[in-house]
Amino acid sequence: MCKNCDYTIHGAQHHFGWDNALAPVQRVEPGQSVYFECMDSSAGQLGPSSTVDDVAVLDFGKINPVTGPIWVEGAEPGDALKITIQQFFPKEAEGSASGWTANIPGFGLLADQFTDPALTIWKYDGATRAPALFGKEGRVPLKPFAGTIGCALAEPGLHTIVPPRRVGGNLDIRDLAEGAELYLPVEVAGALFSVGDTHAAQGDGEVCGTAIESPMDVALKFDLVKGANLKMPRFTTPGPVTRHLDAKGYEVTTGIGPDLMSGARDAVAGMVDHLCATRGMSAVDAYMLCSTCGDLRISEIVDMPNWVVSFYFPRAVFE
Amino acid sequence: MCKNCDYTIHGAQHHFGWDNALAPVQRVEPGQSVYFECMDSSAGQLGPSSTVDDVAVLDFGKINPVTGPIWVEGAEPGDALKITIQQFFPKEAEGSASGWTANIPGFGLLADQFTDPALTIWKYDGATRAPALFGKEGRVPLKPFAGTIGCALAEPGLHTIVPPRRVGGNLDIRDLAEGAELYLPVEVAGALFSVGDTHAAQGDGEVCGTAIESPMDVALKFDLVKGANLKMPRFTTPGPVTRHLDAKGYEVTTGIGPDLMSGARDAVAGMVDHLCATRGMSAVDAYMLCSTCGDLRISEIVDMPNWVVSFYFPRAVFE
Repeated sequence: MCKNCDYTIHGAQHHFGWDNALAPVQRVEPGQSVYFECMDSSAGQLGPSSTVDDVAVLDFGKINPVTGPIWVEGAEPGDALKITIQQFFPKEAEGSASGWTANIPGFGLLADQFTDPALTIWKYDGATRAPALFGKEGRVPLKPFAGTIGCALAEPGLHTIVPPRRVGGNLDIRDLAEGAELYLPVEVAGALFSVGDTHAAQGDGEVCGTAIESPMDVALKFDLVKGANLKMPRFTTPGPVTRHLDAKGYEVTTGIGPDLMSGARDAVAGMVDHLCATRGMSAVDAYMLCSTCGDLRISEIVDMPNWVVSFYFPRAVFE
Repeated sequence: MCKNCDYTIHGAQHHFGWDNALAPVQRVEPGQSVYFECMDSSAGQLGPSSTVDDVAVLDFGKINPVTGPIWVEGAEPGDALKITIQQFFPKEAEGSASGWTANIPGFGLLADQFTDPALTIWKYDGATRAPALFGKEGRVPLKPFAGTIGCALAEPGLHTIVPPRRVGGNLDIRDLAEGAELYLPVEVAGALFSVGDTHAAQGDGEVCGTAIESPMDVALKFDLVKGANLKMPRFTTPGPVTRHLDAKGYEVTTGIGPDLMSGARDAVAGMVDHLCATRGMSAVDAYMLCSTCGDLRISEIVDMPNWVVSFYFPRAVFE
């Protein structure tokens, strides 16, 4: 629990999708902190005892529940909502926190190549946050964050939770971790903020479509920047963002050509091939592992007409 | 100079563009090391005493000279050429190494917004490689690398040097720095390897189109992996890749939408705006500075239909 939080929002107070007609579950003043109980992105459909059969029958109507919405007093369109990400609290059961990574058919960067459901179950120590084991040899460093964090849109009606938008939402930005300060454009009075989709670890890109999906609670502090008129979300990190991954360097594959999406696909497919060849892994295991710890970077975007996208896999996972 | 190198290739032995009909300037055995004298990407047209007027009259027929080509004994199509990047030797003049960063009209990620030529001249200590000063307050950490490093294409004729290809070339990958091991697909007998376009520092993306362009020599070791049948270049880094930048964390801007290129443009434009607002810089100065030290990352590429591209500016530059 959060001793310094002003309010607790219970996990039952969640919603699916964004709708500015939803009644706020709590009103808070700028400067106050709130403790949110968050479910994982399957709303509990997948857990530590799940099997791949459960992936095949997922109810997509219950994907990505977010806890909220919160009304922030004084927030008006044109302001920025500043969210200080204070702390994550992985939920423990039977002495361990847990998470899952799935290949969900039709979803993910290489969905055309990985058409069958697959599932990896993770267990980890929520207190020490020591690297989580993958198979017998892999060790994936953890850095909890909230995949979905956002405000209601100005446009009326119910909007799907899947895509992120300028008000935030399913941003899946790995570095929105403890200590980060996120600034989101406000489009409606009160901002109507919600959060969920907590991840224990993810690489830049979230290439297979899921991270280490793990239920956690999160403590956040809210402030307002009046009249900020942000075009897009921005954030600040208090320190380095990859030191949990980078100690042993990286294996890197590339994709080169006139389309960034194709370049990203080639780079990730190249790493899947490389891990299969050097580690004897199955392709879908390599793909899911890449999603939890490998980073997509744009190495150059100016040497017309070909751009270079690189996929960085941290060697520390196997060394 | 390189005491352990087997050969030195003089800077006069350079060429413009790739052509597999070029005669090799040296034949080397796998396992041998070569010291290459490299010019900057302007072939000396820009230097420490240049002004913005010199940018406007650049001769693009003399862009990106590369030193070589080298024939590697035994290299055949289907092999991979392994290049161990041993050491960079910045050229000093009047007690200092130097470099330049330019906004060249028509070139760069935001070419439509920055239509006038601009030039920044840098001086730095090639021995200590202490951060280079930008204006009165900025300090840009250095990490030398070769922007252009590649082999000849199988396709006959002269090919422009500007775009990178699967055989490498103008890759502009910031992490091809000392200690990295690069594997390039070989398409012609002997590989016909050349190198140049040395940079003292660059961020992922090279967003304004130029880095800290700086003449250096470079020592490389060559090996072969027979029958590797690489689809694209890959490489390995011996350690962390951003620790020279990340100590104070990052300011991050985002671009969100269904097109990665638009997302990248929005993220970089957002950072230019942010630096102008918070540091009182001119927009073109902010744009050039971003190119030397800020990183483009793909935060998520799976939450259909909107992807998130983020631009990371290292706070250490101003703290």
